[in-house]
Amino acid sequence: MARILITSGPTRQYIDPVRYLTNGSSGRMGRALTLAALELGHEVVVISGPVEVDYPEGAIVVPVVSTEEMMAAARDEFATCDGLIGAAAPCDYRPEVIASSKIAKTGEPLRLELVETDDIVATLGAAKGNRWVVGFALETEDHRIRALIKLERKHCDLMVSNGIEAMHATDNSVEVLSPAGEVLAQIEGSKTDVATGLLSIVDARLIRGER
Amino acid sequence: MARILITSGPTRQYIDPVRYLTNGSSGRMGRALTLAALELGHEVVVISGPVEVDYPEGAIVVPVVSTEEMMAAARDEFATCDGLIGAAAPCDYRPEVIASSKIAKTGEPLRLELVETDDIVATLGAAKGNRWVVGFALETEDHRIRALIKLERKHCDLMVSNGIEAMHATDNSVEVLSPAGEVLAQIEGSKTDVATGLLSIVDARLIRGER
Repeated sequence: MARILITSGPTRQYIDPVRYLTNGSSGRMGRALTLAALELGHEVVVISGPVEVDYPEGAIVVPVVSTEEMMAAARDEFATCDGLIGAAAPCDYRPEVIASSKIAKTGEPLRLELVETDDIVATLGAAKGNRWVVGFALETEDHRIRALIKLERKHCDLMVSNGIEAMHATDNSVEVLSPAGEVLAQIEGSKTDVATGLLSIVDARLIRGER
Repeated sequence: MARILITSGPTRQYIDPVRYLTNGSSGRMGRALTLAALELGHEVVVISGPVEVDYPEGAIVVPVVSTEEMMAAARDEFATCDGLIGAAAPCDYRPEVIASSKIAKTGEPLRLELVETDDIVATLGAAKGNRWVVGFALETEDHRIRALIKLERKHCDLMVSNGIEAMHATDNSVEVLSPAGEVLAQIEGSKTDVATGLLSIVDARLIRGER
């Protein structure tokens, strides 16, 4: 039995108390992965951005809003886990300045200076020691090559490559890539099917150490 | 019986195929207003941004994503309606340029040039003729005065002023303001209670013409 950290859902980067930058991640993939991991008898800690889905009772759920909060929670929880599945889609830009009250319209353009947020999977991957890390790559073009570049840069043991069709959908279609660049599996179907398929690869290769 | 146009929920302004600017509007207020209006025997057309709530069966629902789409649908539908309740929180800034593929991180800051979207309530209000218009104002400070300024600028017959606590919450606390600057009602409670109270004012003053 392993203790698995799963990040799930989007994060929000507020530009003022009302408006924020985010993406369409629904948390459905993270939820399906949590269920699949629990069914295999593993312990699961889910760190989730704001989503409408309910996570299964058996999991420990840590709710967060921003990427900075997700990073802080992930660092804390990873310390007691055996591995990470980074299924969240953290917002990777934040405004340099957050307005303290609602920005009033003036008729003039608004210039927003955004800076990159720290990459959670890359940060945990760089300090993983003997723990394993599974990343997700969502690309709109050159899926496989960009996913492999991310796998290496983020020190992942597996990278799951999917397209933008996955966002907020009930179905998904993914490729599971190994550090050697092999396509270990192509899985299509409901997010439950994809999660079950992915967890069986994680279980065999990363938890039970079959290569 | 009146035919009432209700706008509801947030809109999204994409900066690339994945990331967008939005706000935490849930559509719950719009849903409660729709129910309250149907219960009084009115016809309701709801134009809704992306939300997780379900609108009642009895309403015509027009789903949209961006503020531009909400504006286009609202102009179309308002032509056949007796009045508008603008409960949506349309995103009021859009990027000047939308990237056609996912913006890749470079380590450098990203400068986003935003321009204001057209104001839906103000646009319909300016051309309302003998139809009535109810606006919502969400402010983080100087609620009442800012709401009254918006009432006048947007040609509203009533303005509902609420605070940021309302967003994504189940409860709400609002002030209903008249063009003369009177506070017609202060309503607190569940969004259902607030919607019922507001609709009874709309019904009496704007539909049945009691002043």
